Amino acid sequence: MLIPVIPSIHDPLLADALDAAINNKTKPLGSLGLLEALAKQIGLIQKSAQPSVKAPAILVFAGDHGITAENVSPFPQSVTWQMVENFLAEGAAINVFARQNACALHVVDAGVNHDFGPRAMLIDRKVAHGTRNFAREPAMRADQCAAAMQHGAELVAGLQGNVVGFGEMGIGNTSAAAALMHKLTGLPVADCVGAGAGLSDAGVAHKRQVIEQAVRLHAAAREPLEVLAAFGGFEIAMMAGAMLAAAERRMVLLIDGFIVTSALLVAARLQPAILDYCVFAHCSNERGHRHMLEQLRGKPLLQLGMRLGEGSACALALPLVHAAVNFLCEMATFESAQVSGRDK
Amino acid sequence: MLIPVIPSIHDPLLADALDAAINNKTKPLGSLGLLEALAKQIGLIQKSAQPSVKAPAILVFAGDHGITAENVSPFPQSVTWQMVENFLAEGAAINVFARQNACALHVVDAGVNHDFGPRAMLIDRKVAHGTRNFAREPAMRADQCAAAMQHGAELVAGLQGNVVGFGEMGIGNTSAAAALMHKLTGLPVADCVGAGAGLSDAGVAHKRQVIEQAVRLHAAAREPLEVLAAFGGFEIAMMAGAMLAAAERRMVLLIDGFIVTSALLVAARLQPAILDYCVFAHCSNERGHRHMLEQLRGKPLLQLGMRLGEGSACALALPLVHAAVNFLCEMATFESAQVSGRDK
Repeated sequence: MLIPVIPSIHDPLLADALDAAINNKTKPLGSLGLLEALAKQIGLIQKSAQPSVKAPAILVFAGDHGITAENVSPFPQSVTWQMVENFLAEGAAINVFARQNACALHVVDAGVNHDFGPRAMLIDRKVAHGTRNFAREPAMRADQCAAAMQHGAELVAGLQGNVVGFGEMGIGNTSAAAALMHKLTGLPVADCVGAGAGLSDAGVAHKRQVIEQAVRLHAAAREPLEVLAAFGGFEIAMMAGAMLAAAERRMVLLIDGFIVTSALLVAARLQPAILDYCVFAHCSNERGHRHMLEQLRGKPLLQLGMRLGEGSACALALPLVHAAVNFLCEMATFESAQVSGRDK
Repeated sequence: MLIPVIPSIHDPLLADALDAAINNKTKPLGSLGLLEALAKQIGLIQKSAQPSVKAPAILVFAGDHGITAENVSPFPQSVTWQMVENFLAEGAAINVFARQNACALHVVDAGVNHDFGPRAMLIDRKVAHGTRNFAREPAMRADQCAAAMQHGAELVAGLQGNVVGFGEMGIGNTSAAAALMHKLTGLPVADCVGAGAGLSDAGVAHKRQVIEQAVRLHAAAREPLEVLAAFGGFEIAMMAGAMLAAAERRMVLLIDGFIVTSALLVAARLQPAILDYCVFAHCSNERGHRHMLEQLRGKPLLQLGMRLGEGSACALALPLVHAAVNFLCEMATFESAQVSGRDK
């Protein structure tokens, strides 16, 4: 795909107007903490002193990973398609949380190793039946990687709203994300590898060895898209393309956990200003996520010790996004409410 | 008021049933973090493996404080009644957040130094026109303290729902809360005093001196209710009584920030098992709140750097309470969704 140029949201005049509006609300200065920064950010993204949240949607991208052949997950690969079926049957955590918070949910087959056949609720953008095993060869070809990113961009172009959350499902994808993180941040592999869906300490040690060996195999991959093709998943590449397209359209990007943030790492290496458009839903309990957020200077809204994926934290953080916009647009000012200001 | 006996929610059989239900949901074990502990707690409070959130309400208690004569707040005392007017006009942060999250809001005049006259939306439980200045004399008489607690209990008895949040408004009440915290936890006054609504460093130092001197004046006050009468506010005493009544009715108690938690400190010294019923909405940026939460072993749901009061964090945390109940009641199990379990 053609990588769009993402401009910064920098706008000193509007920033001043937003600061003034926030500070004139009937509350002690700064007392809404992160919600104040969030209101300002959304105003700048939307180029408006009266921002809004319209038709929020979460896209959940599913894909399989050849690296599962190396015994890096406690769950069998078939759980990927089984969980897609669970999404379609409305039985997963993301269904519950999206429904609760009035968020549309779209499930995308980015590259699951299963034939679903035509299904009303499933968006078929399958690039292949899972990636290759990156312990032995590149996970995908460059043209597959570009196709996946293009699919992501097209899906975002079809959204009607101004807030989009990203979620994923893919057994083995914490291994892909850990390899991407190591290559794109330079942090030691040991800081990038965690328990995923619930590995034992011995399992984590094995996973680390697998990734360290694979990193040596693909030492030549250096550019972001080369790294993405070498280690990534179709769901990760599709998210990276979708994120770039969403920022180009000046949408608010809700970033979920470890795997979603690995896709953002790729996008941010291509277009650093994409970070201006990102709201970090939470800090996951997956080991590497905290380091990733530090690298991106992201301040997560939630810290609930979750590590589920699926976009679940995006759905849970959505009420806070609403709250930021709502206090800015609906609260009285000291003047309008005739409340006295500070007297010292 | 007669202090009710609050039983623990301890119930090993139900706890096992809730653990099993949570662990059989289609997600990695423990991957919903704090929401899993919250779902279990609400189940135990409600004595049900299928808990619910019904008609949640927030009570905002307003009261004035004689200690404002000592120059401990950057805002004049009149802001208390002006903010009550703002609540009634739907212009404050708590109005916006309660409305957004479909939470009923009740505003209570516990002891504001202002005559509102009869007002449709204001619950008049005024004990007096503000407390006395605790730098010179006890803030309230023992009978006033008991009357305030009794009012709180009666207000809770009138609620229809099973979740109640507590909020407050009262210029000067971080000073009252800091003194209560010091007396009830034994922590140094310096750890209990913060910037409140926005004091400068010099203002905080002065506030600390005022409280240290007052603590010496009331050194004889040792029992929780003596301490409450010596330093507390009518809104704080009313919350303590309301909290005890809510726990007696096996409601879920949503605890807001520094001042609300100081009321809970009093209630917990009287009936320690009340803590079983408490959900801590957030960790406030007011200096002492983190220490208070540590004392109470409370794990806050939100950490947004807020310090607004009004019950604002209760309203913002309410969607997470819904989420805990909803995942427990609505998610599929591995069996029902035919998803494979761990294979190692």
